[in-house]
Amino acid sequence: MAKDTGSLRALRRTNSERLLSALMEHGALHRAELARICGVSRTTVSTIVADLVMGGVVMEVVGDQVAEAGIDASEVDGRARGFLQANPAAGAAAGLDFTLERVWGHVTDLSGTTLASDGATVARDTPWQERLTTGLALLDELLSKAALDRDALVGVAIGVPGPIDLQSGVVGPSLPGQAWAGVNVSAEFGRHLAVPVLVGNNTRLEAVAEFTWGAGKGARDVLYLGLSTGIGSGLLVDGNLHHGGARGGGGEVGHISADPAGAPCPCGNRGCLVQYASLNAVLKALSFGDIDELLAAAEAGDDDTVRVLREAGEHTGRVLANICNLLNPERIIVGGELARAGDLVLEPIRATLRRSAMALTRDADVVAAELDLGARAGASGAAALVLRQTDQLVAALLAGAELKSNEAV
Amino acid sequence: MAKDTGSLRALRRTNSERLLSALMEHGALHRAELARICGVSRTTVSTIVADLVMGGVVMEVVGDQVAEAGIDASEVDGRARGFLQANPAAGAAAGLDFTLERVWGHVTDLSGTTLASDGATVARDTPWQERLTTGLALLDELLSKAALDRDALVGVAIGVPGPIDLQSGVVGPSLPGQAWAGVNVSAEFGRHLAVPVLVGNNTRLEAVAEFTWGAGKGARDVLYLGLSTGIGSGLLVDGNLHHGGARGGGGEVGHISADPAGAPCPCGNRGCLVQYASLNAVLKALSFGDIDELLAAAEAGDDDTVRVLREAGEHTGRVLANICNLLNPERIIVGGELARAGDLVLEPIRATLRRSAMALTRDADVVAAELDLGARAGASGAAALVLRQTDQLVAALLAGAELKSNEAV
Repeated sequence: MAKDTGSLRALRRTNSERLLSALMEHGALHRAELARICGVSRTTVSTIVADLVMGGVVMEVVGDQVAEAGIDASEVDGRARGFLQANPAAGAAAGLDFTLERVWGHVTDLSGTTLASDGATVARDTPWQERLTTGLALLDELLSKAALDRDALVGVAIGVPGPIDLQSGVVGPSLPGQAWAGVNVSAEFGRHLAVPVLVGNNTRLEAVAEFTWGAGKGARDVLYLGLSTGIGSGLLVDGNLHHGGARGGGGEVGHISADPAGAPCPCGNRGCLVQYASLNAVLKALSFGDIDELLAAAEAGDDDTVRVLREAGEHTGRVLANICNLLNPERIIVGGELARAGDLVLEPIRATLRRSAMALTRDADVVAAELDLGARAGASGAAALVLRQTDQLVAALLAGAELKSNEAV
Repeated sequence: MAKDTGSLRALRRTNSERLLSALMEHGALHRAELARICGVSRTTVSTIVADLVMGGVVMEVVGDQVAEAGIDASEVDGRARGFLQANPAAGAAAGLDFTLERVWGHVTDLSGTTLASDGATVARDTPWQERLTTGLALLDELLSKAALDRDALVGVAIGVPGPIDLQSGVVGPSLPGQAWAGVNVSAEFGRHLAVPVLVGNNTRLEAVAEFTWGAGKGARDVLYLGLSTGIGSGLLVDGNLHHGGARGGGGEVGHISADPAGAPCPCGNRGCLVQYASLNAVLKALSFGDIDELLAAAEAGDDDTVRVLREAGEHTGRVLANICNLLNPERIIVGGELARAGDLVLEPIRATLRRSAMALTRDADVVAAELDLGARAGASGAAALVLRQTDQLVAALLAGAELKSNEAV
């Protein structure tokens, strides 16, 4: 018989877990709906809910307050009872995203509402130990702004450059100038934080932010492509976040070959997409110093700039056509600095995709990333990653709520 | 808040559904384990199990009979009670796989044990209506061999060539000589069968067979590649079967470009992998009439044959390196007629993959398909597809069992 460990895990739940999960995944529900969804009696719902409300994990709300975050249960008229929702203030999720010269932090409540968000600069050659200290200080500062402390956290996710080996938990293999190479980021932050610490590649966390709050919202099969110094990606497959495959090495769209006869790449492949469509490749082809110079020339209609951006888009479109024939995403989100060139790069991507992909796969929407957060996108995606781990979150909340009736029914 | 409709569906269950699902996914369990897994009391387990046993859906077994299919509950000593398992004989799953000149049928019990399997030939130009009649006659013949009738079926899956548009349910777009093009296969079989009818591409069903019973057993991230007249594939992503993306058009590895400077392909792309590594391409390059001629020359060590197979493997390896950098599968299974050339095609695939893919993704195992079933693989995969739809199966079984105590607790 085929095993499905996902749904098996879902079965291994107490009634408290079931009720809280349903509220977190479904939003506000009437008691009767909650009983039906969880397959338990209304008496069971009443007993457990009383306890969850006492523990501060669930709150009762009246109709027009439903889904508004930050409502204090004591303000709600007792006669209008009936709607229940998970208490957004029962815990906080945090993300820290480390790029070469910055760390950005993001703290949300359990409904995903931002409580605090800010960044700090770090010198390029700062070792990881110092980056960790800076990150924790930033986290404490953000929590303090939100009138919280570390005890409020239900989970933290950390973004770093480069792939993370899921087998060893270690960042690597070594990238030039990559401070975290060889470090088990989760274990190192775990020494300072009493909650689960998740780790993800910067670009994959930008992708999670777009899937949760940006251009991917509501879609089930999405590719996010970050055209930046490197080219990374994130994937949503049938509604599930792709964690990078067997060892977490997936998502490296920049090292998909756009031309097998192209120049050798240090990765082992030839004619990798980064050689044609990364920010660095485009700047180098045009002898520009930075993205602003590029955007100014593009706006002025400089022929060379328009041509190089078109060629970058065409190479990207060819690689995307191959990915579409493999996975048939409904939407492709293009982010990273180069996406700021807008249709000068997006239109050639679309035209090439329409021409090269198969009939059922070629009509994927190609859209620009929506979240104009700059370096913040990764940090907000890290917080979103914490909120997506519903099972872990429910367990953490119930452990903190000191329930009496759990297992009573 | 992030939605996870999968686990929400799992929550929307009665206790009967929970118990039966746990037994189907977990195999034989003690009552106490079952209570713990489902988060219900032992009294609830006893009440519901008594009913499920009466309905013939669950059976009690003693230790050494556990997991042996076909045990009659009445034979089991009442004093040795304790182990419970889903009754393999409570229903049957069936698959029919239509290729150009054959239809193969496969019927299993609920534990996946084969009850009957056989094939029939059809003329190449047979229209779909006649193929459908032939398929249903074959199905009835197989059921009759197993001393069953259509009422025993819990689901049927049908394999056809070409992509199936998941939006319309229709096979297409039109392929040359494809009898099913433009047909809603599920709806047409649904007129004759009172159970859910699933539809899948031939190669994707071969993949399901390998994932369930063959070289992919136990792995969570697997690509199956079928090197045949065309080149199709199937994907297991983090333990979940990939259904082909937004419109079901995914899996077309044969139309991933192996050389963007190559010849135009009717699909719209250039230098598609089918031009180099399909059975037809290899036979044509060597002017051989069929696979047997090819295999004889390969065994005799014919230089041209060895070279063409090596080049086919190298092109395949380059495309697979790109897929590994995107999805990082732990295992790649190579099936289809061309896989019968063994290491003459597998070794160049492995060598190219090791050289071209990135450090974390290049060590994917590349293995030959295990199921030596010929045209039967697709049909057994179709039956496996039915057995993987646990939710649907549990609902069908409970509907047939006429339970009294369901919802009583």
